Amino acid sequence: MRIAITGGGGFLGGRLAGQFLANGHVERVLLADVADVAPSADPRVVFLRADLTDPAAAAAVAEGADFIFHLAAVVSGQAEADFDIGMRVNIDGTRNLLEAARAGGRRPRFVFASSLAVFGPPLPNVITDDTAVRPQSSYGAQKAIGELLVADYSRKGFVDGRVARLPTVCVRPGRPNAAASSFVSGIIREPLSGQESVCPVGTALELWLSSPRAAVANLAHAAWLVPGSLGERRTVNLPGITVTVAEMISALERLAGPEAAGRIRFREDPAISRIVSSWPARFDVGRAVGLGFVRDPGFESLVRDFVADQAAARPLG
Amino acid sequence: MRIAITGGGGFLGGRLAGQFLANGHVERVLLADVADVAPSADPRVVFLRADLTDPAAAAAVAEGADFIFHLAAVVSGQAEADFDIGMRVNIDGTRNLLEAARAGGRRPRFVFASSLAVFGPPLPNVITDDTAVRPQSSYGAQKAIGELLVADYSRKGFVDGRVARLPTVCVRPGRPNAAASSFVSGIIREPLSGQESVCPVGTALELWLSSPRAAVANLAHAAWLVPGSLGERRTVNLPGITVTVAEMISALERLAGPEAAGRIRFREDPAISRIVSSWPARFDVGRAVGLGFVRDPGFESLVRDFVADQAAARPLG
Repeated sequence: MRIAITGGGGFLGGRLAGQFLANGHVERVLLADVADVAPSADPRVVFLRADLTDPAAAAAVAEGADFIFHLAAVVSGQAEADFDIGMRVNIDGTRNLLEAARAGGRRPRFVFASSLAVFGPPLPNVITDDTAVRPQSSYGAQKAIGELLVADYSRKGFVDGRVARLPTVCVRPGRPNAAASSFVSGIIREPLSGQESVCPVGTALELWLSSPRAAVANLAHAAWLVPGSLGERRTVNLPGITVTVAEMISALERLAGPEAAGRIRFREDPAISRIVSSWPARFDVGRAVGLGFVRDPGFESLVRDFVADQAAARPLG
Repeated sequence: MRIAITGGGGFLGGRLAGQFLANGHVERVLLADVADVAPSADPRVVFLRADLTDPAAAAAVAEGADFIFHLAAVVSGQAEADFDIGMRVNIDGTRNLLEAARAGGRRPRFVFASSLAVFGPPLPNVITDDTAVRPQSSYGAQKAIGELLVADYSRKGFVDGRVARLPTVCVRPGRPNAAASSFVSGIIREPLSGQESVCPVGTALELWLSSPRAAVANLAHAAWLVPGSLGERRTVNLPGITVTVAEMISALERLAGPEAAGRIRFREDPAISRIVSSWPARFDVGRAVGLGFVRDPGFESLVRDFVADQAAARPLG
C-alpha cells in the first residue's frame, strides 16, 4: 500500500507517516511539502519538494498512491493577511491534487483535512454534521470550497473522498506559526519550557480542541473506513473537547505550578480574536463516534500527552 | 448607474435588462454572453461577446459597473455530462468576474444567481437559510462554491455580494435547454402551443418554482437592498411555490383543456430524475419575505403569466 501526504513536512504529516510506517503492509510513504523535510532512516519514506499550485507537482504527488492525505494549506492568519496566496494554495492546490488523483484512474482514498473554521456566526448552540457552513475567514471559506470539491469528485467516482473537520490541535510542538490559533498551543508550550507567551483573547473564550494523537489517529481512521461508510455525508466533524482559555490555564497551573501559569501575558489582538471567536466550540459528534473516531478524555490529557511526547522525542544526552 | 449582466443573452438576463432600462437613472446596461444577443433599439444597451473563463473578458464585463448580475452558467444537465466545462465556466468564470470586480476598486454590488441545486439528501422537512448545502450534482457543487467565493470577496470588501438562490423558473419561453429541469417548463409550454412534451419524472414529484417575473423582480431587489441588509448571511433562498407535477398538469388542464394536458407523454429518464429529485421543494422563506422579496400567488398564475407574456411578445400580424 502506498501513502502520499501533502504538508508532509509538517508536524501532523510527520506523525501520520510514523503511524503508517508501523504497518508492515505499507510499501511507501511519500511526504510532499514546499519546505524541506527532515530525512528518515526508513527506506520506504520518499520526500518530494512539491508546490501543488503546479499541476505537474500535484501529479507527482498523486502518482500511484492508494491513500492521499491532503494536509497542506496556507494557514488561517496567513490566508487572511494574503488573500491571493490563500486562494492559490488552498483552492487551486486542492483542485490540482484532485485532478491528478482523477487522472491516475485508481480512485484513491482522498482524506482532506478541513477545519472548524468553516463555521461562523450566527452559530447554533451545538454544531452537527448538518450545520450550514458560514466561514468568517478566507481560510475557512477555502476549506469549505475544498470540502465541496472533494465531495463532488467523490460523487463522480474520481476519488473516494473523506473530509475530516479538525478541531484546533493542541498542544503543537515547535514554534508559533501564522495560524490565528497558534496561541492555543503557545500558552501551554512556552510556559512549560520556561518562556513567556502572549494570550491574544479573553479567558472566557471557549475552544474546540483535539490532541495531536487523536487528530492523527482520526485522519488515519478516515482513510481506513470502508467505502460507503459515510453515506451521502462525506464530511465528518472530528471529536474534540470544549474548554475555555481559563480552564486551560488552570490545568497548566495544576500540572506545572503557578509559576508556569504566571508566564502567560494577556494582550488582546483584535485580528486574532475576531477570527478565533467566530469558530464554534460545541459539537454533537455522535455520528463521528459511531463511525469509530476517537475522542480525548479531557484537557489535562492533552498537556500530559505533549509532555510525554516531548520527552520521547528528546535526543539522549 | 451602470449595470452589467452576464448570461445577458439569456431569457432572465434580457428581462432583467428590460426592468433596469425602464429606470431613467440607468445610463448603461451591458449584456455579456458567449452567444450572440438580439440587438436592442435602446442606445443605453451595450453587447459584449465575453467568455468569462478569459480574465480579460471578465475585466471588460466588470469595468465601470455599479451593479453586476452574474447569471451566466453551464446548466445542470450539461455540467453533469461535461464535468470539466462546468468547472471552468461555473467556478473559474465566477472567480474571474469577482477578481475583475475587485480590481476595479469600485466595490460593485454583485448579485450571484445561485440555485436550489446546492441542496441534496438527506434533506430536512423544510429548508431554511441555515440549512447545510449538500449538492448532488456538479452544477449544485459549483454554485455552492460560487456562493462561498461571493461571501468571502464581500467579507473582504472587494465586492458587495448578494447571493440569490433561485427556485426552478417556470414557465420559460423558447426551446428546451440542457438543464435537468428543462422539462418543468416544457410540459406546460409545448402543450400550450399544440406540441407534445415528455415528462421524465413521476407525477408525485414536488418542485419548488418561481415565475420568471418573480425571479427577475427578486434578482433586481437583491441588488437594491441597502448594504448590510443581509447581515452575516449573504445568501437568501428566494420565495417560490411548492407544487407537484400532477398539480401542474391539473392546472394546465383547467386553463387549456384536456387536449393540452393530453399532449404530455411520460417516459422516465433516470439521469434527469436522479438530479431533480435530489432538490428540495419546501422552504421557509420568512427571512426573504421580510427582506421584501416577492412570491407568486400559485401555479395557475405562472401559466397565466406565460400566456400573457407570450401574447405581449408576439409581433403584430
